[in-house]
Amino acid sequence: QAKVNALVHNQWFERFIISVIVLSGILIGIETSRSLSQGQLHWIETIHAIILGIFVIEVILKLYACAPDVKKYFKDGWNVFDFSIVVVALIPFTGQFAVIGRLLRLLRVARLISVLPELRLIVTTLIKTIPSMFHVVVLMLVLFYIYAVAGFNLFHESNPQYWGDLGTSMLTLFRIVTLESWTQIMYIDLAVHDWAWIFYVSFIVIGTFIIINLFIALVLNNLDE
Amino acid sequence: QAKVNALVHNQWFERFIISVIVLSGILIGIETSRSLSQGQLHWIETIHAIILGIFVIEVILKLYACAPDVKKYFKDGWNVFDFSIVVVALIPFTGQFAVIGRLLRLLRVARLISVLPELRLIVTTLIKTIPSMFHVVVLMLVLFYIYAVAGFNLFHESNPQYWGDLGTSMLTLFRIVTLESWTQIMYIDLAVHDWAWIFYVSFIVIGTFIIINLFIALVLNNLDE
Amino acid sequence: QAKVNALVHNQWFERFIISVIVLSGILIGIETSRSLSQGQLHWIETIHAIILGIFVIEVILKLYACAPDVKKYFKDGWNVFDFSIVVVALIPFTGQFAVIGRLLRLLRVARLISVLPELRLIVTTLIKTIPSMFHVVVLMLVLFYIYAVAGFNLFHESNPQYWGDLGTSMLTLFRIVTLESWTQIMYIDLAVHDWAWIFYVSFIVIGTFIIINLFIALVLNNLDE
Amino acid sequence: QAKVNALVHNQWFERFIISVIVLSGILIGIETSRSLSQGQLHWIETIHAIILGIFVIEVILKLYACAPDVKKYFKDGWNVFDFSIVVVALIPFTGQFAVIGRLLRLLRVARLISVLPELRLIVTTLIKTIPSMFHVVVLMLVLFYIYAVAGFNLFHESNPQYWGDLGTSMLTLFRIVTLESWTQIMYIDLAVHDWAWIFYVSFIVIGTFIIINLFIALVLNNLDE
Ligand code: NA
Ligand code: NA
Repeated sequence: QAKVNALVHNQWFERFIISVIVLSGILIGIETSRSLSQGQLHWIETIHAIILGIFVIEVILKLYACAPDVKKYFKDGWNVFDFSIVVVALIPFTGQFAVIGRLLRLLRVARLISVLPELRLIVTTLIKTIPSMFHVVVLMLVLFYIYAVAGFNLFHESNPQYWGDLGTSMLTLFRIVTLESWTQIMYIDLAVHDWAWIFYVSFIVIGTFIIINLFIALVLNNLDE
Repeated sequence: QAKVNALVHNQWFERFIISVIVLSGILIGIETSRSLSQGQLHWIETIHAIILGIFVIEVILKLYACAPDVKKYFKDGWNVFDFSIVVVALIPFTGQFAVIGRLLRLLRVARLISVLPELRLIVTTLIKTIPSMFHVVVLMLVLFYIYAVAGFNLFHESNPQYWGDLGTSMLTLFRIVTLESWTQIMYIDLAVHDWAWIFYVSFIVIGTFIIINLFIALVLNNLDE
Repeated sequence: QAKVNALVHNQWFERFIISVIVLSGILIGIETSRSLSQGQLHWIETIHAIILGIFVIEVILKLYACAPDVKKYFKDGWNVFDFSIVVVALIPFTGQFAVIGRLLRLLRVARLISVLPELRLIVTTLIKTIPSMFHVVVLMLVLFYIYAVAGFNLFHESNPQYWGDLGTSMLTLFRIVTLESWTQIMYIDLAVHDWAWIFYVSFIVIGTFIIINLFIALVLNNLDE
Repeated sequence: QAKVNALVHNQWFERFIISVIVLSGILIGIETSRSLSQGQLHWIETIHAIILGIFVIEVILKLYACAPDVKKYFKDGWNVFDFSIVVVALIPFTGQFAVIGRLLRLLRVARLISVLPELRLIVTTLIKTIPSMFHVVVLMLVLFYIYAVAGFNLFHESNPQYWGDLGTSMLTLFRIVTLESWTQIMYIDLAVHDWAWIFYVSFIVIGTFIIINLFIALVLNNLDE
């Protein structure tokens, strides 16, 4: 067990795993090419199977290195992440679910984050800032909900494409807060209601004001540490 | 009175009010669905009446808890906010004003802010930063006014859609400062006046420069505290 | 002279001047209305003449208060600003230059900045930050010039609307750096040259990177003070 | 040699080189004019040859000033930059490569950066911040790669213009992260797949979140110094 523990923390073992992940990513990229013959696709599938095998062995080795205290392995969120990707990859997706299978295989590229310490640090830091944003996000959701229902009630008859139901209204508001061609939507309503600009301008002013303050909170949070 | 005071500050009482607000919000959301039967709409209206009743009782209890010093209740801006929503909800809006009634009912969702301490803190902080921005906003308005009148005088004949009157010009400038398809407007004027780009580029440079400085002022203001 | 000096620094004198400026601004706004009769326009012109008279008297009084050391008056940039507006207003613009006359009259609204201490402070602060940005702006101009000539040489044949000459290219680059419908331009060139995306993406990455650093420099500059 | 060393560091020598670079830039700008006669173009070419001669002499003088320790010259990245521009300018580009020759000549304008100490300082500072962004850029690339392959797999059939192959998908994602008319692309996919908004909204939220954190990292990095 000590040997296994030494192995999985060995620099060369880690480099090997990184290479396998990069290879996996390259294969996934090659697969998007349309000029592949059946034979080539078959080869790629075989290599994918081998890669999956390597990942399974890696998980087993790491679990064995922690045995009998398996909890220790699952305490690290990144191990849970690696474990889930392998487990999910073992589920066979066929027929109409083949696309889902291919998307889940894509998550192996995300393993680059769990295997490179610098990326792992950045993502861990990013995830840690999420709780400090939680209440501002709730505030944003309250704002979105109020404006979505208001937008539906005010404009759903004259502008059903953008305010036809609550979901569409939420998506329209997200679009407006990214300042993406928002006047295009406003002019449709402005042609019917003279006051429609109040709805749009107030939402943009309040929305961007909250986002800016969310941003300032993030800066100050980082400055504290 | 002491009992009432204890009740309105009781954790369970607050949780109950939060639930009622959330329920109110969910009902308002359900109402946007088009597939509701008359019977279902009737039910929703009944629950809305009950919710309003609960809000009225809550306000009366809180007022009684402060009695005889009613001013104490109204000193807290959030109590004034809650009180206004209830008073406004008691006004019957019928006929063509039904939309206004429905929009005012929507404000009940905003009570989530007054009832959740964390959101209340964020919004109070946001509102407190407004005075520090007051003079920059006045400066921005002077800039908007000068460019709106100038834009009207220069372009209202060749480009009436965007510079036809002072109000439209202000809205066009707001659109330009959000960088939203501003070239689309400029190209119309550029076809008539070779120098039109000076108007647009100078406004964007000055406008965004002021906004960036407003933003920096907000950061420094927050750093001071 | 001491009396004049006391007068021009009197709070009520300042408030009177502010009122005159605001009145001037309101009149300029009213003039944009199309439903004015000739009589009303005549009235407005008369009031404008009176306002100009008041401004002339104000300048003379302030000059007299500083006499015989007139240089003292002109040492303050804001006095120079006020003086220029009055001098320029005395030039009669008729015929085809009437528009210029109306635009210069508009500058009187900008006197609000010179007369309100808070706005004067903000604008003075903004102007003081300009020298610290000077070299970054020069760098930005070098970048714009290089990309403008390159864009002209690469795309002026296939995309003359956006890269037809050096001036148009500069305007197109300004548009791209505001991220305004830049793909619309790129797709025209991408249809002819496979590599056109390199030009656009590199310019956006470098351009926004410099702007972000200009912004950071402004924040740090403000932090120092 | 001491004389040469004194000469190349002489203020007037530097000013002369700056003037030559500016003249070179002006000529390159004039060349974009279409109304030039063959004679004028010939003249410009002659001056370009003289300018190139001056640059060659400058490089030789600076090399001689460092002799016999030529390495000392090449230790300064800016000298390598100047040297490369001169070497590259000596390669004759004719026929279909004439455009490349003209673009490389344009790099002489960039010599303004190497010759003006203030610009050199800014660019050196900017380049020094790049390593601190390296890992965030790698993270961004992983995100782009995952979303590009996913976008290809999900949308390449219904929306080949934007997701037709891996390269196009990457360019589309860059466009989306600049918030440039991203809904235009989304609505095409939304017409086919109800859930398409999840792909776009999640990418914008994650992408802008990483960019904001990159930005914060830059601010904090600068604050440390
Ligand atoms: Na935009
Ligand atoms: Na846009």
